[in-house]
Amino acid sequence: MSGPVERAAWVAIDWGTSNLRLWRMGATGEVLGEARSGLGMGVLKPGEFEPVLCDLIANDLPESGRLTVIACGMVGARQGWQEARYVAVPAPPPGITQALKVETRDPRLSVHILPGMSQAAPADVMRGEETQIAGFLSAEPGFDGVLCLPGTHCKWAHISAGEVVSFRTFMTGEIFALLSGHSVLRHSVAASGFDAETFAAAVSHVMSRPQALAGDLFSIRAETLLDGLGAVQARSRLSGLLIGAELAAARPYWLGQEIVILGEGGLAAAYRTALEAQGADARRVDAARLTLAGLTAAWRALAGAVE
Amino acid sequence: MSGPVERAAWVAIDWGTSNLRLWRMGATGEVLGEARSGLGMGVLKPGEFEPVLCDLIANDLPESGRLTVIACGMVGARQGWQEARYVAVPAPPPGITQALKVETRDPRLSVHILPGMSQAAPADVMRGEETQIAGFLSAEPGFDGVLCLPGTHCKWAHISAGEVVSFRTFMTGEIFALLSGHSVLRHSVAASGFDAETFAAAVSHVMSRPQALAGDLFSIRAETLLDGLGAVQARSRLSGLLIGAELAAARPYWLGQEIVILGEGGLAAAYRTALEAQGADARRVDAARLTLAGLTAAWRALAGAVE
Repeated sequence: MSGPVERAAWVAIDWGTSNLRLWRMGATGEVLGEARSGLGMGVLKPGEFEPVLCDLIANDLPESGRLTVIACGMVGARQGWQEARYVAVPAPPPGITQALKVETRDPRLSVHILPGMSQAAPADVMRGEETQIAGFLSAEPGFDGVLCLPGTHCKWAHISAGEVVSFRTFMTGEIFALLSGHSVLRHSVAASGFDAETFAAAVSHVMSRPQALAGDLFSIRAETLLDGLGAVQARSRLSGLLIGAELAAARPYWLGQEIVILGEGGLAAAYRTALEAQGADARRVDAARLTLAGLTAAWRALAGAVE
Repeated sequence: MSGPVERAAWVAIDWGTSNLRLWRMGATGEVLGEARSGLGMGVLKPGEFEPVLCDLIANDLPESGRLTVIACGMVGARQGWQEARYVAVPAPPPGITQALKVETRDPRLSVHILPGMSQAAPADVMRGEETQIAGFLSAEPGFDGVLCLPGTHCKWAHISAGEVVSFRTFMTGEIFALLSGHSVLRHSVAASGFDAETFAAAVSHVMSRPQALAGDLFSIRAETLLDGLGAVQARSRLSGLLIGAELAAARPYWLGQEIVILGEGGLAAAYRTALEAQGADARRVDAARLTLAGLTAAWRALAGAVE
């Protein structure tokens, strides 16, 4: 027989397009439990978010009073639960005071959605990364430099005096997935593996001649056919060309700045390698806990305001 | 009751990855009939090409002797019927003397596959376009300049003294299809429509700053969300960015050259518009008959050699 499960003092959710990740939190910020679900924003209608949430936290709902839930990500998009309008840069990453208070049917819920950030020119938006940035700044409030957040859509953000000054989004991860999995290059490119030398050469090549990129891509296929280019080399070349093109475009961000990569695994390592080859040292911070740190910072602000 | 169908003197086939197009030809080069099929190289095993062909020309097979069939395209690839090895540039587009004579089970068939062309550095290959180029040169044998063949994979070929001197392939059409149909941009981009002004501005933008392309793509999505960018404008912007990036990479080909675009419809018009904005006049030639013209030139050479 297991003992009674401790009820959560509040709930944190990273609710993205494809997935959600939920943490049941204790009163001093400790994690009591964690849940994941494939019920992301992309498969839910506005009226379906609340039942999904209630299912996941059924045992935490109090008999009286309200349970605080703080969420970030695409849950706040126009097609999400309720729209949490963007906060325009320059500004600190949005905190609890800018959060959208959701109207719920269940009176035991008190749901706050943190907004994303927007930039007028060049036009850009983020939803979710601002909370990772908030989490990073809660640990390093005095940071002045550039954050790089690799992923499907890599974000570069210039941070100064606790504010996001400007940012840019690059579809590098998504383009890599499309080209390696769904274009003619799929016949050339391995599903995994990394050749550091080939990667570095491709980064260097495209950064010195970014205007040639459009012609470099098909060469991967041609070299497979004519020269027996290996599939892992082909994958590393494609990755190097696309990350190199991103670094060429993001140069105003990283040149001469302190750079921190918020990410783990091979992709973050590849960005670091590529930057180092350009003479730019980058520090890496494991991003896995940063979203929760950002949501926790919002909860602390809320709790502090209530106290 | 219809009369007896005239038997073909020879058969021309453009046998690509996704489709095949077959012409039943008369003894003086006239078209007696035409057939299309979705049985492209991509869905056939090596042993399946001959039965597919025999089905399409069953009424043309002679009681004695052999029916000449001349084919081009991916049918000659390594994964095709039989491999017709590339002819390396610089060289004239391959003719009948370089064709692969296929070993068939049916003794009434005499099948010739025209090879593609290859380039060692930068590595590149073509299969099918060389026959369009041969068709163009059969009408304009003295042409000296650059041919642009828009499509899924756009080819640029430098032609001089009847030879393909060099060429480059750009995956622009395939990348456009992937980004507009399968990336996050699909939420922004219309399925059709063309805004000439937006297109021209995007071409000009990316040609003056090709290194910024990687950041320009996501801006399409952001401007939809923030500024209400229209879906046709978004489509035209994406097209302009990708074609502009191709023109930036292909500049050594078209700058100061006589340019002929082998293509029809909106895509060829878009390339012409983009080139004109760069001060480069391009002539357009309808490409629909060029493959057949190239196959016919091969047949004439074969018939002449036999006579």
